[in-house]
Amino acid sequence: MKDYIKIDEWRIIEEGFDPHLNKVSESIFSLGNGRMGQRANFEEQYSGPSLQGNYVAGVYYPDKTRVGWWKNGYPDYFAKVLNAANWIGIGVEIDGTEIDLAKLPVEDFRRELNMREGYLLRTCTVVLEEGRKLKIEAKRFCSIVDDEVGAIRYAITPLGFSGKATLTPYIDFDVKNQDANYDEKFWEEVSREMEDEAAYVTARTRKTGFDVCTGMTFALTQAGTPVTPRTIPIESEKYTAHIFTVSILDGEETVLTKFAANISSENHDRSLLQDVCQRAVQQARAKGFDKMVEEQAAAWAAKWAESDIIIEGDVAAQQAIRFNIFQLNQTYTGEDPRLNIGPKGFTGEKYGGSTYWDTEAYCLPFYLATADPQVGRNLLLYRYKQLGKAIENAQKLGFTDGAALYPMVTMNGEECHNEWEITFEEVHRNGAIAHAIYDYVRYTGDESYLADYGVDVLVAISRFWAQRVNFSEEKGQYVMLGVTGPNEYENNINNNWYTSTIALWTLNYTLEVLAKIKAENPARYAVLDMELGLEEGREFGTWRAIIDNMFLPEDPKRGIKLQQEGYLDKEQILVKDLPASERPLNQKWSWDRILRSCFIKQADVLQGMFLLEDQFDLDTIRRNFEFYEPRTVHESSLSPCVHAVLAARLGMEEKAYEMYLRTARLDLDDYNNDTEDGCHTTSMAGTWMAVVQGFGGMRVRDGQLHFRPMLPAKWSGFSFRIRFRGAVVKVHVGRNGVQIEADKPLTVFVNDEAVAVGQTPVTELVG
Amino acid sequence: MKDYIKIDEWRIIEEGFDPHLNKVSESIFSLGNGRMGQRANFEEQYSGPSLQGNYVAGVYYPDKTRVGWWKNGYPDYFAKVLNAANWIGIGVEIDGTEIDLAKLPVEDFRRELNMREGYLLRTCTVVLEEGRKLKIEAKRFCSIVDDEVGAIRYAITPLGFSGKATLTPYIDFDVKNQDANYDEKFWEEVSREMEDEAAYVTARTRKTGFDVCTGMTFALTQAGTPVTPRTIPIESEKYTAHIFTVSILDGEETVLTKFAANISSENHDRSLLQDVCQRAVQQARAKGFDKMVEEQAAAWAAKWAESDIIIEGDVAAQQAIRFNIFQLNQTYTGEDPRLNIGPKGFTGEKYGGSTYWDTEAYCLPFYLATADPQVGRNLLLYRYKQLGKAIENAQKLGFTDGAALYPMVTMNGEECHNEWEITFEEVHRNGAIAHAIYDYVRYTGDESYLADYGVDVLVAISRFWAQRVNFSEEKGQYVMLGVTGPNEYENNINNNWYTSTIALWTLNYTLEVLAKIKAENPARYAVLDMELGLEEGREFGTWRAIIDNMFLPEDPKRGIKLQQEGYLDKEQILVKDLPASERPLNQKWSWDRILRSCFIKQADVLQGMFLLEDQFDLDTIRRNFEFYEPRTVHESSLSPCVHAVLAARLGMEEKAYEMYLRTARLDLDDYNNDTEDGCHTTSMAGTWMAVVQGFGGMRVRDGQLHFRPMLPAKWSGFSFRIRFRGAVVKVHVGRNGVQIEADKPLTVFVNDEAVAVGQTPVTELVG
Repeated sequence: MKDYIKIDEWRIIEEGFDPHLNKVSESIFSLGNGRMGQRANFEEQYSGPSLQGNYVAGVYYPDKTRVGWWKNGYPDYFAKVLNAANWIGIGVEIDGTEIDLAKLPVEDFRRELNMREGYLLRTCTVVLEEGRKLKIEAKRFCSIVDDEVGAIRYAITPLGFSGKATLTPYIDFDVKNQDANYDEKFWEEVSREMEDEAAYVTARTRKTGFDVCTGMTFALTQAGTPVTPRTIPIESEKYTAHIFTVSILDGEETVLTKFAANISSENHDRSLLQDVCQRAVQQARAKGFDKMVEEQAAAWAAKWAESDIIIEGDVAAQQAIRFNIFQLNQTYTGEDPRLNIGPKGFTGEKYGGSTYWDTEAYCLPFYLATADPQVGRNLLLYRYKQLGKAIENAQKLGFTDGAALYPMVTMNGEECHNEWEITFEEVHRNGAIAHAIYDYVRYTGDESYLADYGVDVLVAISRFWAQRVNFSEEKGQYVMLGVTGPNEYENNINNNWYTSTIALWTLNYTLEVLAKIKAENPARYAVLDMELGLEEGREFGTWRAIIDNMFLPEDPKRGIKLQQEGYLDKEQILVKDLPASERPLNQKWSWDRILRSCFIKQADVLQGMFLLEDQFDLDTIRRNFEFYEPRTVHESSLSPCVHAVLAARLGMEEKAYEMYLRTARLDLDDYNNDTEDGCHTTSMAGTWMAVVQGFGGMRVRDGQLHFRPMLPAKWSGFSFRIRFRGAVVKVHVGRNGVQIEADKPLTVFVNDEAVAVGQTPVTELVG
Repeated sequence: MKDYIKIDEWRIIEEGFDPHLNKVSESIFSLGNGRMGQRANFEEQYSGPSLQGNYVAGVYYPDKTRVGWWKNGYPDYFAKVLNAANWIGIGVEIDGTEIDLAKLPVEDFRRELNMREGYLLRTCTVVLEEGRKLKIEAKRFCSIVDDEVGAIRYAITPLGFSGKATLTPYIDFDVKNQDANYDEKFWEEVSREMEDEAAYVTARTRKTGFDVCTGMTFALTQAGTPVTPRTIPIESEKYTAHIFTVSILDGEETVLTKFAANISSENHDRSLLQDVCQRAVQQARAKGFDKMVEEQAAAWAAKWAESDIIIEGDVAAQQAIRFNIFQLNQTYTGEDPRLNIGPKGFTGEKYGGSTYWDTEAYCLPFYLATADPQVGRNLLLYRYKQLGKAIENAQKLGFTDGAALYPMVTMNGEECHNEWEITFEEVHRNGAIAHAIYDYVRYTGDESYLADYGVDVLVAISRFWAQRVNFSEEKGQYVMLGVTGPNEYENNINNNWYTSTIALWTLNYTLEVLAKIKAENPARYAVLDMELGLEEGREFGTWRAIIDNMFLPEDPKRGIKLQQEGYLDKEQILVKDLPASERPLNQKWSWDRILRSCFIKQADVLQGMFLLEDQFDLDTIRRNFEFYEPRTVHESSLSPCVHAVLAARLGMEEKAYEMYLRTARLDLDDYNNDTEDGCHTTSMAGTWMAVVQGFGGMRVRDGQLHFRPMLPAKWSGFSFRIRFRGAVVKVHVGRNGVQIEADKPLTVFVNDEAVAVGQTPVTELVG
């Protein structure tokens, strides 16, 4: 755990330069706009520890997989979001001395991520020698107004001397992925072109053949006056640079402004990429940096109006929740159904930058509540479009007749992960994908999605479940053998309660949806019947038999569901009795010891009660919570939020707040000592849930909004805004109770009592 | 399955050259003498598919491991037997044409492995052009008289022309391992020296620092007359060659004889390696090729006298059993307790060439019965010497107080394997290592081994078992969770019957051994008590509690032991109902499907009944055999032999013979299509067991030999010789009954009836 970020409501601030923290800060201060993003690397040369990272959404490389021992069925590649061209680079040399913060003394270093307006600002003073210093001020952003464009204002001011500055704005496409399995480079040059004050490099990914043109133009001013320097072009493969030298005067600011664009063949005709890029950077330049900054601030203001949460009386909490919302909005905007939410967003390369079940289980509720319904729909369509691949994926594992197994990790629908106990066995992901359809429809009321798209996915997943179980003669019941549940600290177990439960839920929901379509839209049903080859008698009969006679392990004595068959054979120890020196378990214990222990990585039975809360009475949830939470080490960033929501539901305020704290500042305080690899983007949505569903107690039941607010003792109040079925609803929870506003008449429920809202206009949240 | 090896009692013969079979033949025709070995590569250049392999026992490299996803506790290297210098190489050019069997037409190709005399002979005729042919005859061997030396007689005869032959005998130490994880080379040159007709290259392994000097001297004769050619020395790093050109006359034989030696720093002072090597090759040369061949034949005759099995009326079976015995004797001679039996012997590189539980569970009986007791003792001492590492290995996994877990795969006692379900969970290997001590003592009667060495190993393994189980409050019994049994088609299962049973057996035997030492040798016991920190009350009490109250899964209805808890929840299908197109499962099914199925890779419950046969009545064994065998796919080469022995015990002649056939010609007929990687050396010992323990029904009970012979219908008789407690016993089984001879008076049991033997001298086996 670290504690170096300054507390501020709207800004993330680092003061003083500590090279040991640089990679952590590079992650935290990352920028993104859903289409492209980058780590908070320095513009000028930096020879200290750094992970240079620039990313373009949807552009990936199928890196040859690496395994210890091959198992039949493994995918042979692992798709990676590619480190793309470095377009921020500006070499700086002052009178022959290269500016490098790893080599020269640094004073007054300050890095600020302005979340309200969406930019990164860095200032520092570099000591060249006694009495000769150089002040640097660098401000940059990825535009959310034009999401292919970014801009930098890089200002230097000599203090105590005048001299010569050699500046080298460059584009470097000769990059590699830190996580490349065989140290290969993934980009090949297609073309490069240099103009007097601009350059364009187009490169193509090997194998996948994505083209990206990265271009830039720059402008120079000195003391506010435009200057046209004489530049020397430097070119090499996948690299362009303009070098020029100018005189700099003591106290006078020299400003290099760099306008850049990433244009991808995913979005434009391959033959026009450079033209499009040229136009993009020229338009940006014509608009000017200040105007762009202004537009960026306005656009972010609109985003904040939709999605902000205000916490009163706790600035650290305020900063943290905004940081999470900011990163979520930087990562995914929902405009493109081909894109999804990588586990690190644009802040790092770990986990390949692909799609996990995190999207459906943790992120969807945030986007449903804070954005246009089309955004949630696009997340669903992403999986709908990949249904064919999910069916192929299941076929590889021996499933037939249109059964689908969605991949654990994917970029384009194909499985990328290669650990048998996860790839082949952590099949509960299929359940989350089915449940997301229900969640979306429940939240938006968009029933048409079911007949048009959802039902295909539901049927294919139900077919998977029906084939994945088998009838045990021994038990006289259906069983599901050899699975890994959400708790990955158990592998290849039998009858995981969560997986079996979500499977039954899927079968049930699919039958319901089919019955509804048949009743309401017989024509569509007839088409489905033919297309999907539904066999009501045989197939639905099997599904019903499974629903009626599935083995779900439980312990009647304790009145709890059993995480898996045999869980109680384990030595029962509580986390509080584990010596601190043995934690985190995944760094201290060998894998078999973890597997044999009763310790739980993340919510498993409780994940089921979280998703399917309505199926369980409060006493059941409480008994299970009280049994499982003390055995849970929360070594997944996705665990505490679920517990926070449930604890709040159970009125356990202290536990709810403790769980909330575990994720709220996870990255800001580098709680798990791994933020240098990138931020835990998907778990940020969990923090949002902990506030809105946990402390706000927000639920949707029978098409209506429910709240059951709980105000943590450390806060004096909090408020959030959500969209719900065409209305905007604002909730404020304070010491004096709850105020709910809506922009149209709506009945909501507060602690199960109906309240009519929407009589007065919705006020803005004021942070 | 292939069928190209000619049937012959004493020889393995290939006729006609098929490049597609070359790698298979390179494995089958391998040579070895326990100290060094090599695949049957050609001496001259060969540009077709080939795995060049020369190996020196005990010389390994800790290759950096490769994993998909790192698990805490994984070893960071995998030790590999190194591909060492190619000392057989002789370049041949005839009038400017390089002889390369991949490029020139080949006639009359014949490869012969003479098992009786221990050499490899290859003859062929290469067509240079119409009317110009070159006859090649190459004979070579690794000496079992001087196990650091090998020799080649390489003869060429021009047919239909006279011309110039350029010959290049060379040493090439610039080799790499086919299985190198990162394509690195493992040898670095230390020195090289060339003399007129000799050369020496010394290289050192990276990291491990083993030095090996490989040297050779050569001699030339033409038409039987010694010739001294003018040679040009060629040197490069790790490489020496002598080039010379001689005239060759139509029909006249030119013979290059090469005498080589591998001298390792494992056996000699590092500074003297080249001197030792020089002496070795000069002595060999002085002795001469023919004399060496003669000595080799005599030494092999002595080995055969000890270990031959004669099968009457079935030449293919005769050839097969001799091939297995020959390879076992080529691989391990038992003279050096630092060495062990690699899974491929000297015939390939797969599986790293390290030690597996195969040694104790499958190979030990062969060496006990056919060699000096010191050989079996050396196999035991190998593990005894590695006890410290086994204790460290267990510590890494969280075990304490001197508990030992022997590695799954090892070279020097450290674990090399990196699949969590095997490395950490296939812990039954500990049981086989304990049982081997019992087996050795039972067979040899050498009780002193227990107090001197065995007890330390037994106590450490017992401590492991006592910590590896836990008390289940739910069951009120001890359980062993999270293991992989011998049947690797189940992973991370609970209460594997075999593992738990062998654990209880170990605890019991350890207590017995300790009690015996205490009673018979109180002084030694006092020392042990102190050294091992025995706590009779607490520790022995725990062991007894586990023995008395361990959960062992069974099915009372069927009267069978259950392979693991929950086995009967699986869909019960028999192998005979599997379509042939789905076999072998490990190539056709994904791993999860294999795991979920009831199909068994190799004996598991039956492995236990095989090892601990005396604990079970025949009906119990029969019920288990009849339940499990039909579910077993035998996709491990170690499986059929166990079934053959049990089937014979149960009087199931047909099944016993079927199982025997599955391993007998496994490599000769390339049954599993993988012989090109090397031979299945350890399973060869299983074939020996199938004959001696299966058809011969040989057992040791209460210190006495028992036989229960069964003559397969296809054989007219068979005989084998074994050593037993200082006596030599010969058993002949024929249609007219059994004859047993011994070289001293002995009571043996035939079908449980005592028979006095040893009244007449033992006749030789005559094959």
